[in-house]
Amino acid sequence: MYAIWLENKKLSVREDLPVPDRLSGEALVRVLRAGICNTDIELTRGYYPFTGVIGHEFVGLVEEGPDEWIDQYVVGEINAVCGKCTSCLDLRRTHCTNRTVLGIYNRDGVFAEFAAIPIENLHVVPSTLSIDTATFTEPLAAALQIQSQLNIDKSDCVMVLGAGKLGQLVARSLELTGCDLHVFDRNESKLNVLSNMGISTGHVDTIPNSVFDISVECTGSPDGFNIARRSLRPLGTLVMKSTYASNLTLDVSDLVVDEITLIGSRCGPFDLALDMLINKQIEVEDLIHARYPLRQGLDGFETAKQPGILKVLLDI
Amino acid sequence: MYAIWLENKKLSVREDLPVPDRLSGEALVRVLRAGICNTDIELTRGYYPFTGVIGHEFVGLVEEGPDEWIDQYVVGEINAVCGKCTSCLDLRRTHCTNRTVLGIYNRDGVFAEFAAIPIENLHVVPSTLSIDTATFTEPLAAALQIQSQLNIDKSDCVMVLGAGKLGQLVARSLELTGCDLHVFDRNESKLNVLSNMGISTGHVDTIPNSVFDISVECTGSPDGFNIARRSLRPLGTLVMKSTYASNLTLDVSDLVVDEITLIGSRCGPFDLALDMLINKQIEVEDLIHARYPLRQGLDGFETAKQPGILKVLLDI
Repeated sequence: MYAIWLENKKLSVREDLPVPDRLSGEALVRVLRAGICNTDIELTRGYYPFTGVIGHEFVGLVEEGPDEWIDQYVVGEINAVCGKCTSCLDLRRTHCTNRTVLGIYNRDGVFAEFAAIPIENLHVVPSTLSIDTATFTEPLAAALQIQSQLNIDKSDCVMVLGAGKLGQLVARSLELTGCDLHVFDRNESKLNVLSNMGISTGHVDTIPNSVFDISVECTGSPDGFNIARRSLRPLGTLVMKSTYASNLTLDVSDLVVDEITLIGSRCGPFDLALDMLINKQIEVEDLIHARYPLRQGLDGFETAKQPGILKVLLDI
Repeated sequence: MYAIWLENKKLSVREDLPVPDRLSGEALVRVLRAGICNTDIELTRGYYPFTGVIGHEFVGLVEEGPDEWIDQYVVGEINAVCGKCTSCLDLRRTHCTNRTVLGIYNRDGVFAEFAAIPIENLHVVPSTLSIDTATFTEPLAAALQIQSQLNIDKSDCVMVLGAGKLGQLVARSLELTGCDLHVFDRNESKLNVLSNMGISTGHVDTIPNSVFDISVECTGSPDGFNIARRSLRPLGTLVMKSTYASNLTLDVSDLVVDEITLIGSRCGPFDLALDMLINKQIEVEDLIHARYPLRQGLDGFETAKQPGILKVLLDI
């Protein structure tokens, strides 16, 4: 089958890969559409030394598996878990000690004609939802994870730093809380998408110091972290949404004196994300900036890296 | 008057200082006893470039001020606040934008015969409480701040890293929550104080990875931070209690993937700390390892820096 392969930080389109073996508890899914995420781009920069088929945002059709799943349109959670470790037993399944992660860690991903996905990870996409829209389930779930971790309401003054792929979804989901929301980026066109929706936006250079109750860092850069930290009032909370391939030097005493809280935030609730897409509480189709056939996927990656570009989809 | 003066990281005993002016809203307090804190020691290492009389843990006698305060034994909160800034109006007074901090920032401290303290910062020490014990009000309040920030109960597996001055108080206050508490240090004698009270202790080299729900870092070293971080299970919380004069290099992606929460924690509730000392819920007198007259205060500092030494008091 065709797939996009990552090895030593280098991507290639391969056509010699076997259709993946479906293990016990897994379905074989024909991938229909997939989305390029910043984590995919960071993997090509060495964020994690993964070798294999990359990609984890997808919609597919079940071709092999239990009868009731055959021919269902599905999206899938990305952490394949053991069900037996302390994390699993304590219902922190996304943190399973023995997990593999779709297209990121020890499990081939979805920039491929077929992928093997644990059946327990699958969620049915109803026919009322377009395939394009459903492709955003995984990143929207990640955006919604913030609200699983923190109560945010209209009393909170919240900044989202970075109006890229993830920042857009974070901003749109936070807007629904009624909080006093402000989104900052360097790229005017990304901000315009949000200001046209009535969300307050501004250039990074205009971010005030020591103002926000909560700042959400979605830029994936050490600079972004420091800007987000400075924007917080004492006792404020910095939500770290991005994974990236570099370290950060931090003044811990400064965090202690201001009693700042930092929260790392990763994968979120698929059911809620699907519901919000189905109910059109969050619109996403305007985020699609380009689409490429899988075999031109490397061009898709190049496009996805350009400034001002939001979601790039792959048609498979 | 006599006082211990800090300038360019160097301490000296001076006898040429004037008794401080008492400004509006302040009391003039004759200091009776004071405690040397790790922050004092970190100030001599350049944690913050303070010039002036250092010291912030004290018990004193009010000599000048409103009639009802005269001759009262008092302890005092260390942040002198403006009452008008956003932090003050939002009841985050310890984070007042315009604050001065006793013996730390723009305000002469208590390693002196007299100190000027805002009356609103004072708390009466009842006659049932010994002066020695009352000297621990400020650091015990700082230890209790953790429980103002986090709900900790018997379902939590908690590590305290560092059994020094602050770690002892943190451990003793957390013990009362019924949590599954474990304290680690390199120094056996400091650990023995706690294990004799029935608290589980161990050498730092025996700390397990990925186990604790909450780890409290009380060592004041970058090493300590990294050990505390590694000890946390995914979705765990690292409480940072120490201020120190160096930066830390951090893998932010690692915090994101494990969805770790970091919380800076500083000054805490004096009323609660005083009550717990009065009610003997927390005993502290065994922590006193040495006492020096103020004029031999520099020897006191040298003693306080030695391994295995807990609280050093100054008699004034």
